Amino acid sequence: MSNLIPVIEPTMVLNEDVCKSNIARMAQKAKAARVTFRPHFKTHQSREIGEWFRASGVEKITVSSLNMAMKFAEWGWNDITVAFPVNCLEHEKINYLASRIRLNLLLAHSEGAQKLSACLKYPVGVYLSVDTGYHRDGVDANNYEKIDRIINIVAPDVNIKFEGFLTHAGHTYNARSKEEILQIHRDNLRMLKNIKERYINRYPQLKISIGDTPSCSLADRFGVADEIRPGNFVFYDVTQMHIGSCEWYNIAMAVKCPVVDINRDRNEAVIYGGGVHFSKEYIARPGDRPLFGLAAENHSDYWGNLIPGTELVSLSQEHGILRCSDAFIANLHVGDIITILPVHSCMTADLMKTYHMSDGKVAYHI
Amino acid sequence: MSNLIPVIEPTMVLNEDVCKSNIARMAQKAKAARVTFRPHFKTHQSREIGEWFRASGVEKITVSSLNMAMKFAEWGWNDITVAFPVNCLEHEKINYLASRIRLNLLLAHSEGAQKLSACLKYPVGVYLSVDTGYHRDGVDANNYEKIDRIINIVAPDVNIKFEGFLTHAGHTYNARSKEEILQIHRDNLRMLKNIKERYINRYPQLKISIGDTPSCSLADRFGVADEIRPGNFVFYDVTQMHIGSCEWYNIAMAVKCPVVDINRDRNEAVIYGGGVHFSKEYIARPGDRPLFGLAAENHSDYWGNLIPGTELVSLSQEHGILRCSDAFIANLHVGDIITILPVHSCMTADLMKTYHMSDGKVAYHI
Repeated sequence: MSNLIPVIEPTMVLNEDVCKSNIARMAQKAKAARVTFRPHFKTHQSREIGEWFRASGVEKITVSSLNMAMKFAEWGWNDITVAFPVNCLEHEKINYLASRIRLNLLLAHSEGAQKLSACLKYPVGVYLSVDTGYHRDGVDANNYEKIDRIINIVAPDVNIKFEGFLTHAGHTYNARSKEEILQIHRDNLRMLKNIKERYINRYPQLKISIGDTPSCSLADRFGVADEIRPGNFVFYDVTQMHIGSCEWYNIAMAVKCPVVDINRDRNEAVIYGGGVHFSKEYIARPGDRPLFGLAAENHSDYWGNLIPGTELVSLSQEHGILRCSDAFIANLHVGDIITILPVHSCMTADLMKTYHMSDGKVAYHI
Repeated sequence: MSNLIPVIEPTMVLNEDVCKSNIARMAQKAKAARVTFRPHFKTHQSREIGEWFRASGVEKITVSSLNMAMKFAEWGWNDITVAFPVNCLEHEKINYLASRIRLNLLLAHSEGAQKLSACLKYPVGVYLSVDTGYHRDGVDANNYEKIDRIINIVAPDVNIKFEGFLTHAGHTYNARSKEEILQIHRDNLRMLKNIKERYINRYPQLKISIGDTPSCSLADRFGVADEIRPGNFVFYDVTQMHIGSCEWYNIAMAVKCPVVDINRDRNEAVIYGGGVHFSKEYIARPGDRPLFGLAAENHSDYWGNLIPGTELVSLSQEHGILRCSDAFIANLHVGDIITILPVHSCMTADLMKTYHMSDGKVAYHI
């Protein structure tokens, strides 16, 4: 019998084998497709899990803040893309990093480009953020005038090397089928192909970087892309399962929570596990209560199958409401431990901070 | 000119004057209504802000976890109610606290009562959690059979003193008018009065404890209640404003965020400030985008009026999408700082951790 992970309060549990399989599968896919694998580390934000990537041959990474870049640079990563529109108020961090590692920054707006050019003391690479339909940040993929304006601002700057175009097709998260995700992926690549063709003569080395976990999980071909930057796949979660980019058994992370109250009249249990543990992100379900997580059978240190009809349907700060099946609640007692697969593993990991694994092994989130 | 709070990344700002006014007003109200003021510290979770309460005469507090109780006990609070169904897996913390301070615990289920009785080595007080309509935890306020069962489990235990009945009328958060909140408050007190009348002969000292911020903000009379436990009022937030329990100028906490991208075609700005800063809690608005926060004018270290038509309508991990009015976006630039009043201050404070005040003063969340 293994040395069980002690659970007396909400405890994040990481299945190391599943997580390493997720990493290996994506690394293998990138290799087969001959694209650079530059995983996004914003999901795990862990020095230890980072080393599992390194063991899979990863040398280049993506992060979503300069603070995260500072940490991973400290931990020996020396080729980092910060895939967030550059914030030149943090110029000290930018210059600190640029003086020490190979740093890529993201430009989304001509004013950001001007400010970057004005504050840089060391060389950096830049990607231009193009919007292929997600409509969060960056320049519309068809607006060549705006693209040209940004490129022309940075082109004369000896400290700035224009690396290429980067997109995050986050609208795949609104998809509800594999085919819909793959259609977005193809549309994305087609728009990026047009851009590449327009600029390749001026910038023969330019690279195309794409990134969302749904596309990278389901597609095997990446067309014009030179690089993939998925992040969430390291753990996956109920959202990814819901949209079809993984199966439940690919989910590597869960939170174990004590049962503190049971209401058999309503088929509900109250667990110690709320918004400060899971985040309050949910999947809306018309005509039904929102979904904050799915319950899975306890199995040694980790978990087994999903428990049919047993779901986290409400969260307050520390309380979670688990709606239970008749069969499940019949044998449930106060003090039992429930394993919950979270709706969004990035947010849950950011709150829980400590990854518990078998045999007392732990890893830490920043 | 004051020594401005430096903002280069998402920064939580606390208006000390507004916060102290919120505390003083509630303390005064409790005094006038002759009820004990046992504020809930789960919102601020700050040693320093706790001292502001102490300066207002507060000696007894409420928290929502044993971990929080451990911290506040360390910081000199010696009369603490943990208003969360007791979790006896944490018996070591329970006994540690019970041996050192006056500790009140919450019973919601007969199994929890049995487990508590079995693990206690030192005396505690207990409240019974009664459900007056929120339907989260506790025993239905009309189910005297279940109430009796729990009381009869703990009555013979020399380590357990039955203190009375506690409720959290959290369904006031679903209200959308002051009158609706006050109606819930009156219904709540009526149900508690029935319970008190039934048990007062057996327990002449029994107390009734109520707690939600909407009721405590709007009501001046607390009927049968002996104690009030509001928490969120210390900061308030856009949710409280939305349901009518405060005005915007009572909100004491905000997050200042840099603008990193602007899309004038969509009237949107991208701010550095996402789900890991604000939490992903939102106010749903049928036919409109969800509301994650409201923008306010920058004013010295703090903020002034709300900016009409300028709202946080989407969040991803680090990005926020601010939908702007024409007038506001016309003068907006990348690198500007936007002040956002959060939808739920408890969740935002839990993520942001550091409270910045004028003149370099700071306070810390656990």
